[in-house]
Formats: sequence, structure tokens, C-alpha cells
Amino acid sequence: MYRTNTCGELTEANINQKVILSGWVQTIRDKGFVIWVDLRDRYGITQLVFDDQRTPKEILEQVKKLGREFVIQITGTVIERTSKNPHIPTGNIEILVEKLTVLSTSLVPPFVIENETDGGEELRMKYRYLDIRRNPVKDKLIFRSKVAQLVRNYLSSHDFLEIETPVLIKSTPEGARDFVVPSRMNPGQFYALPQSPQSFKQLLMIGGLDKYFQIVKCFRDEDLRADRQPEFTQIDCEMSFIEQEDILDTFEGLAKHLLKELRNYKIDKFPRITYSEAMRKYGNDKPDIRFGMEFIEFNEELKKSGFKVFDEAELIVGIKVEGCADYTRKQLDELTEWVKRPQVGARGLVYIKYNKDQSIKSSIDKFYTEEKLKKVIQKSNAQIGDLLLILSGEAQKVRPQLSALRMELAERLGLRNPDVFAPLWVVDFPLLEWDEEENRYVAMHHPFTSPKPEDIPLLETDPGKVRANAYDMVLNGNEIGGGSIRIHDKDLQAKMFSLLGFTQEEAEAQFGFLMNAFKYGAPPHGGIAFGFDRFTAILGGQEVIRDYIAFPKNNAGRDVMIDAPYPISKKQLDELGINIIKE
Amino acid sequence: MYRTNTCGELTEANINQKVILSGWVQTIRDKGFVIWVDLRDRYGITQLVFDDQRTPKEILEQVKKLGREFVIQITGTVIERTSKNPHIPTGNIEILVEKLTVLSTSLVPPFVIENETDGGEELRMKYRYLDIRRNPVKDKLIFRSKVAQLVRNYLSSHDFLEIETPVLIKSTPEGARDFVVPSRMNPGQFYALPQSPQSFKQLLMIGGLDKYFQIVKCFRDEDLRADRQPEFTQIDCEMSFIEQEDILDTFEGLAKHLLKELRNYKIDKFPRITYSEAMRKYGNDKPDIRFGMEFIEFNEELKKSGFKVFDEAELIVGIKVEGCADYTRKQLDELTEWVKRPQVGARGLVYIKYNKDQSIKSSIDKFYTEEKLKKVIQKSNAQIGDLLLILSGEAQKVRPQLSALRMELAERLGLRNPDVFAPLWVVDFPLLEWDEEENRYVAMHHPFTSPKPEDIPLLETDPGKVRANAYDMVLNGNEIGGGSIRIHDKDLQAKMFSLLGFTQEEAEAQFGFLMNAFKYGAPPHGGIAFGFDRFTAILGGQEVIRDYIAFPKNNAGRDVMIDAPYPISKKQLDELGINIIKE
Repeated sequence: MYRTNTCGELTEANINQKVILSGWVQTIRDKGFVIWVDLRDRYGITQLVFDDQRTPKEILEQVKKLGREFVIQITGTVIERTSKNPHIPTGNIEILVEKLTVLSTSLVPPFVIENETDGGEELRMKYRYLDIRRNPVKDKLIFRSKVAQLVRNYLSSHDFLEIETPVLIKSTPEGARDFVVPSRMNPGQFYALPQSPQSFKQLLMIGGLDKYFQIVKCFRDEDLRADRQPEFTQIDCEMSFIEQEDILDTFEGLAKHLLKELRNYKIDKFPRITYSEAMRKYGNDKPDIRFGMEFIEFNEELKKSGFKVFDEAELIVGIKVEGCADYTRKQLDELTEWVKRPQVGARGLVYIKYNKDQSIKSSIDKFYTEEKLKKVIQKSNAQIGDLLLILSGEAQKVRPQLSALRMELAERLGLRNPDVFAPLWVVDFPLLEWDEEENRYVAMHHPFTSPKPEDIPLLETDPGKVRANAYDMVLNGNEIGGGSIRIHDKDLQAKMFSLLGFTQEEAEAQFGFLMNAFKYGAPPHGGIAFGFDRFTAILGGQEVIRDYIAFPKNNAGRDVMIDAPYPISKKQLDELGINIIKE
Repeated sequence: MYRTNTCGELTEANINQKVILSGWVQTIRDKGFVIWVDLRDRYGITQLVFDDQRTPKEILEQVKKLGREFVIQITGTVIERTSKNPHIPTGNIEILVEKLTVLSTSLVPPFVIENETDGGEELRMKYRYLDIRRNPVKDKLIFRSKVAQLVRNYLSSHDFLEIETPVLIKSTPEGARDFVVPSRMNPGQFYALPQSPQSFKQLLMIGGLDKYFQIVKCFRDEDLRADRQPEFTQIDCEMSFIEQEDILDTFEGLAKHLLKELRNYKIDKFPRITYSEAMRKYGNDKPDIRFGMEFIEFNEELKKSGFKVFDEAELIVGIKVEGCADYTRKQLDELTEWVKRPQVGARGLVYIKYNKDQSIKSSIDKFYTEEKLKKVIQKSNAQIGDLLLILSGEAQKVRPQLSALRMELAERLGLRNPDVFAPLWVVDFPLLEWDEEENRYVAMHHPFTSPKPEDIPLLETDPGKVRANAYDMVLNGNEIGGGSIRIHDKDLQAKMFSLLGFTQEEAEAQFGFLMNAFKYGAPPHGGIAFGFDRFTAILGGQEVIRDYIAFPKNNAGRDVMIDAPYPISKKQLDELGINIIKE
């Protein structure tokens, strides 16, 4: 037996017990007459004590040869500590060691295995198995495991069935590039890895399974951006005989449950906002509403006053930054430069300060009377000491610019507190987007998303105006889940494919199996998919996604530590009926 | 709202309630003055009633246009049935319909959607979404979902963490052929899909996570045999600071929990048997012990009597078939032919009958005195009416032959009852197998399996005799799980690689990442992996695995319904840096 107890559980209640512990040597403090060793395992740290008086000589000899990260097993007696550590559960006791076995030695680790480490990102990734030993990483993996169990138990208790869908499938284009797998049994042909189990879950609804979920790996062969993994995990769900309201209710319930269980955070009801309102109030379809700074439009107040920039602008829109009227010229200049960076792209920034002495000072004083500026102050409901920041230009461009500024200011002002949670639903997304490059409409969500019944006539006359039964769950400025009510009528589905520019043959080739299934009695259905990696990270405190993945991919898409991809053998290529033309 | 209730829950308690139901039309019985429609959803069937007296004319018109598998929504009142059906929970009520909406029409389905269907295998696979509507298939998928939740909750409650391991990995040869995925970011290089997360779970143990599990898809590019899927699901587990006993205890606990919860089946303690004992007693390393018929060896009793076949045989071994002494000559001839088939490969079959009149009749009467045969009867503890069937030859060949006969007879005698569960552990597997083709030893389990400490000296002198800390869980003649205590000592691991014929460079190239990790303090660890598909099927009544998979692969490895693999575009091939040389 390697242990009677873990390193995280012995307390004063165990004093005088004989115990066996196993774990890693965290630290060794050799004071000459006494040596303390901190022994670590997943569950905690227990202090071992060795001294001249009580420890046999041969054990003292052994201890002197130990190094950090050695794996040892000890037998000893729980005794009371003289110098207690109130910060850890085992802080009142230590183990007087009677027997010590080295189970594995260790080289000196390339970085220290402590909460704060001296290891750089790259080194820690290369030795991920050592990084995982550190509490901050270990705790995130434990947290993720807990989220998974909570999700499954919640959904199971709500009659959802966990059904596995295939991984080696036919390509069903969903925006991104598929990873493909050459088939040896069918040389010259390929499987695709799923970007999502979308088609399969719809087939399960047609199959009458009523409620489906799966926590499932999905794959996108995209160029790697920060915090995007080529393989990612999705909480995938679908329900039958439901309307949008039922889905929002069900999954709002799930999110509340997670916030409550994981963070002891109670939320009454998620606000709902339409896509167009979100764009108008936040310039963003995934608004962070942990703080205000809602957009205020000033076309009425600020146009037609001879300030050409505003007079010619489609939209003049600003935010109120509370208590920041004392920003210096330098600070305001810096903010102006910030919005003019190519990543934001604004042409300039106008400010209006409502000073402590009740005066109003702005960068547009020469174009506006104080009375006019007061109207602006009034409309924005600014208080003394507040600062207004205003952008102008084409509505479609200026809103995202102001959104960027809003987020930046919130960040600087410490308003994006990762321990505050502000979820909401964004609803009524447009059904279609105009693709400039392809010169045609594309589905904003996917081609199975249903239009709002009242907007169906617009499909013929003004497709861009049609709203979809589509919704996103947004948490702290992140889209964590999105879904839609699907089309279950084969004629409407055919019309959608035609709107999206598919010929009947193309639609048949790509989605024939699903269209065929619709001919045999499809129930009304809809669903949602959550980005499990991102959802978990935000619940855990908005850290980077890859901290929550045991073996993330690095920037070349390679696995951390295991150097994949790798060169393949000629024999294997022959069997697959392919060869390499470019290396 | 599509429904106030499901089709499986209304009873007499709901009489006079107004309800809304949605579902599929199961059957329509039109008696002229009254029409009954059975409405079906995942949860059950509810009878709808329409009649001349109480149903509005326009609804009666609608009903007459309904067909099987139409999806409808109805509003109506729960009333008591005149002719009750005690076989279903809703059998005492019916719904008097006031409003009917057709949600989807259906073509006439290609086979009847009932428990007993007229559809052949191929048709049901092609229209799997219709097959799933049938109770026998639906119930299996629900059962599988339940198994998954039970497994996860059991392991979570035992401190196991669910950790996801990557799918796009480096090839780590494990016997079968890998599926590979060309990398676009690294043209000319490939990922492999994991045959199991073996290396990763060992790294997690080195990372100190202590207890890991995952229900995970694994992949083997093998030629398809009956009931083997190229993608399959594994319950994958690993533990640290444990000995074999801890693993057997933990997972015996899991299996007992599943048997109890799913089948209300209680088992006290799993028998354990060594590999060599299993081979001697059952000729098989996954013995079905729902019935006896253990092997009895007769070398002592039957050799040296002038019967050349036996005299020259290395092993004479038989089974006792209870109560079958009255087998006719014809039956015995047929059994003889059965064992002589190439799939079994025996050279002949000897029988000894212990007849009702106490006489002994055998096919070898002319070689043996009755006294000698009586000794055989005695040794086998045969009772009057029993039949002995005996094979002989080379031990390594004759045991599997007799095992096949034993299983066949059990099948014929109805002893393989799928509702009886007889689990056991087979332990002490050989560490190595001699590979005739490659003329070297290969790992029986995998190269990380540890030898029994007391057998380590044999590694130098007689490697074939070394027993491993390896174990299989066997249930009703199926290996449902297997694992081992791993080597955690880097020197012993190096010795293993060398025994297996790897040069140091080869070992480094293939397993370098793991061997490197061993240098930084590896805990003693071990694990087990269960074939989730098979385990579920056996728990569910020993049906074919693929019945428990929503979208199985067909014999060409293609997904049911979705015709993958598929031809790939030239553009995609170019991006991947490969081309096709064989179609």
C-alpha cells in the first residue's frame, strides 16, 4: 500500500496516528539539527520532520540525498507542529518520519513547481507535465472536470440524452476548413472531422429522441490565432417540440446552475436584447454589461452647427465615462491616438468635460455654444465630474470603433472584474449577411436556421432585413453559446438553399441526407452549442482558454510536448493511395 | 407552446384536464363513426379519439388525411377510455381532440416503425433516423446514455478527474493502424488519431493529477470485422500511488455499481483467475463462467493404451456435458464435423456417454477397458446421463478448440443467458509474446506494462515466462476492460524497449517524450480501459454493439446515411500538399 492518507487531509484529529504518505518533494529546509520536507500530492501539502534526536541516522542520510520533485513514500506518526501554518488545512501537524522510500528520483526541474514560477511560457508548455503539478494549472483542470460533471448532471436531470455522434464523417461545410482523413478502405476518398455535430443532432431530433446533448470535440483547420485551438470542445444540445422561449429558459437555467454551484453567484433573470439594440447600445453583438457606458446618440444635438466632421457624419455617438472629467490633455491625446490606431480605425475623438466647477470644456468649443453642449450633457445624463467621449462617421463603422473604446476604458478603469458575472441573451439576429466577396447572401448562423415567421414575406423582397430565430448567450463580453430554431419544413429549407445560391443539385449533394430525412416527419426543433473551453475559462475567472486544457496545441497546431504532426512512412502513404507533393 | 405534456405521462389522475400534445402518428384505426389515432413521442403513446358525435367536422376531415409518421399537435381533453390497455401507462385514458395541427407530413416510411418491423438490416441502416424511432433502438440509446452518466458520477465521486486528451496527436504505435490527418500548417506532415490516450494519461499521472478518467473516442484503421467499429469509445482510467489490488477494487466497484443500478443485479466478489489457469480450465483468456464445463485433463487416464491418437497427443482434454448422454449418433457426428471445420480445426472428437443404465459407451471402446473409462468418468465427476467430449493434440491448439466447442454447446443448451452476469478478473498475463513473423518478442499489452517484481530476473533468462502486472475484466465471455500497472522506472522502461527490439534511437523517436517525463519524478501508476461500446451492449443484454450506436459505420467504414468518405477537391489537396495516386 502506497498511502493510508493523501497529503491534504491530516489534521490535529489524527495526532498520534501512524500513517503512510506518498508524493513529491516540494521543498527541503535543512536547519542542521532538524530537516523539514514539504510533501505534495494533488490534494495538498504535508510537512515531514526529521531531526537528530528522533530520526534514525540512516533515514537522515537518505533525506540529505533528496531533491525537489523526487517521489517518495514515508511511514511516520502524526505529531503537533510547534510553528503552525494557518494557511493550509494540514498546517497544525507534521509527520515524524520512521521510514522513507524513494520511489522515483528527479532531475532538477527546468522551472520551480510553485504557484509563482520562474518558468517562461514556452518552457512551461514544453514541460507541461511539470506545469500541471503547479496549483494554478492543476486547479483549472479540476475546475473544468467539475464543470463537465455539473453540465451533464443538469442536462440529464432535465431528460436530455447523451448521444455520441461520429467523428469520421462527410464534409458538411460550416464556414471553416475541414480537417480530412484519407480512407484506406476507399483509396482516394476522405473523411472530414466534424466542425460540429449539427447535421447529426438534427437527425436525432427527426429520430424522435426529443432532447440530446453531448460534450464533444470539434475541429477546424484554421490558421491559429491567439487562444483558438484547432480542436475544441462544445456542449452541444438540441430539443424538439420547443420554441425559442423554451431553449432560452432551459439553458439560462443551466448557466444559472453553473454560476451558483461553481461561484456561489446568483442571478435572477438574464436580460435579453435584440441584435439591433445591442449594436445600437454597445456597437457589439456580444456586449459586456458588467458596466454601463451605453452609447448615446447625438445627431439631433450636434448636427447642423457648422462643425463639418459632425455635419457630414451619418452617426454621432458617444459614451459617458463617469468621474473622468479630470483627464489631462495628455491622457485625452493618448486616447485619441488609441482610437486612431488601424486596429480601431476612428478618424478622431471628441471630448466634453463636465468639470467640477460646473463649467463645460470640450474639444469642439469653437463650434458649439455652451447651451448646445449643455443639451448634450443633459441627454447623456452626465453628472459633474463626468467625461463624454464622442465618435462620428458611418454608423456601421463608428459603432464598433466606439465599442472598442468602451471596452478599453472599462479595462483601464477596472470595470471588467472577472469575479462579476453579467450574462445576457442577444436575440433576433439577422438571418443573412451580404458577402461582398462572393456577391451573395450567406447564412449568418447556418443554412438550417429558421426565419421569424412574420419576416418570411421579406425573404422575397428584402432578404437582408429578415430576422432569424437565433440567439447567443453572452457572458462578460464573450459569446459563450449560440443557437437557433431550425427549419423543419422541407419547402422552406429548399427556399433557403436557393437564397444562399445553392443549385438544387448542390444542395442535394451536400445536404441531401438531411433534406431526405425531412420528408419523413420532422418535428419542430432547435438547439444551442456552447464553447466549453471558453465558458469554463470565463466561469473560472476569464483566464486564457488554453490554461484550462491539459495538452493544448502550440502555435503551429502541434501538441504540447508530443511533436505532432510527424513525417509519415512511404508504406502508409501507399496504403492510403496518396503521396506528398509539397513539404 | 407545442405541448403541455408528453405522450407517456397522462393517466386517470388527469381526467378532464385540457392538454396539448405533439408527436408522431403511430397508427390510425378508422371505424367509420370513430377514429383512434395513437400519438407517439420518445416518452410513450397516447390514444387520441375522434368521433361523429363530439368531434367538429373540419377536424374529422383533417384526421382522414393523416398518414403514419405525420407530426401533429393536438389540443384536447383527457377522458376515460372504454376499452383500457393495461400494457401502457397511459392505457386508461384517451384524448378527445378539439384542435389538430399538422406540423410535418411524412412519406410512407420504407418500413413500419414498430417494435417488430418488416425492414431489413440494410434498409433500417439507410434510414437510421426512422429506425431510431423504434423502441428497441431508442431504448438502447437511452440505456447507453444512462451508463455514461453512471460511470462518470461513480468515478467523480471517487475523486477521478475527467481530463480531455488531444485527438490530433503524434503516432504512438499500439498495434493497429493509425488513421492519419494531413496538416495544412505543416505540409507533408501528418497527425494521427489516437488508438487510445495511453501516453497522455501516463503524462497526467506524472503531472500529479492522481486519478484520471475520460469517456473518449478512439480510432483504429482496421479492416472491418463484424461488430468492430473504426471509431469506438473507451472508458479510460489511470491512478497513481496504487498497486494492482487498488485498481481491481476500484473498478470491480464500478462494475458492481453498474450491474446494480442498471440491472438490479448484485454480485458479491468477482472471482479471480490467472491467465494460465484460465487457459488450462477454459482454453480461453476471457472465459464465460455463466456455466461450468471446465476442462478436465485425461493424460494420466487415457495415455499409453494403444490408441495412437491419444498416445501421441501432448494433451488429452475434455468437458462434461451434463444430461446429454442421450445424444444420438447423428448429433455426435454433427458435433464431430463442427469441431473439424477449419474455424475450429480439431482433428476429431471422442465421446464417452455415461448412460442411464449405468453402462459406458464411447467412440474409443475398442482401445479402453470399461474400467479405464470408469476412471475417466470418476475423474470428471460425471453423473449418470452425462456426456464427456474429448479432444487431443498439441496443448496450445487443443485448448482453444475445446473452448470453441464448450461455447458452442453452452449456446445450444441455452446456458449463455444474457440476463445472467458472471464477471471475473483474469490476472498475471504474460508480459511478452513471441512473434513468429517478426522473430522477436512483442508486448502482450503494451510496452509500458510492468513485469511482476519477482519475475524481473527472468527478463534476462527466459523472457517468455515473465508475468505482467496486467489484468482483464471479463464479463460473460467478453473482455470488457483491460489494464496494467505501468513501469515508472526509466531504467526498467529502457530495458523493456531493448527487449522488444527497439534501438535506443527508435525508442527515443517514438517514446522520447514519455521517457523524458520519467526523468522528473514519475509516481507508481496504473490503469484500465473499458470498451464502452461492448460493456454497454453486454449490460444491455449482449446484443450487437452497433445497436447501441446512434450512427454506426457500415462495412465499408462509411457512416450510416451520410455517405463518407467522399471525393476531395483538388484545391483542398493542394493546400494539404498531397495528391491522390490510387482511386
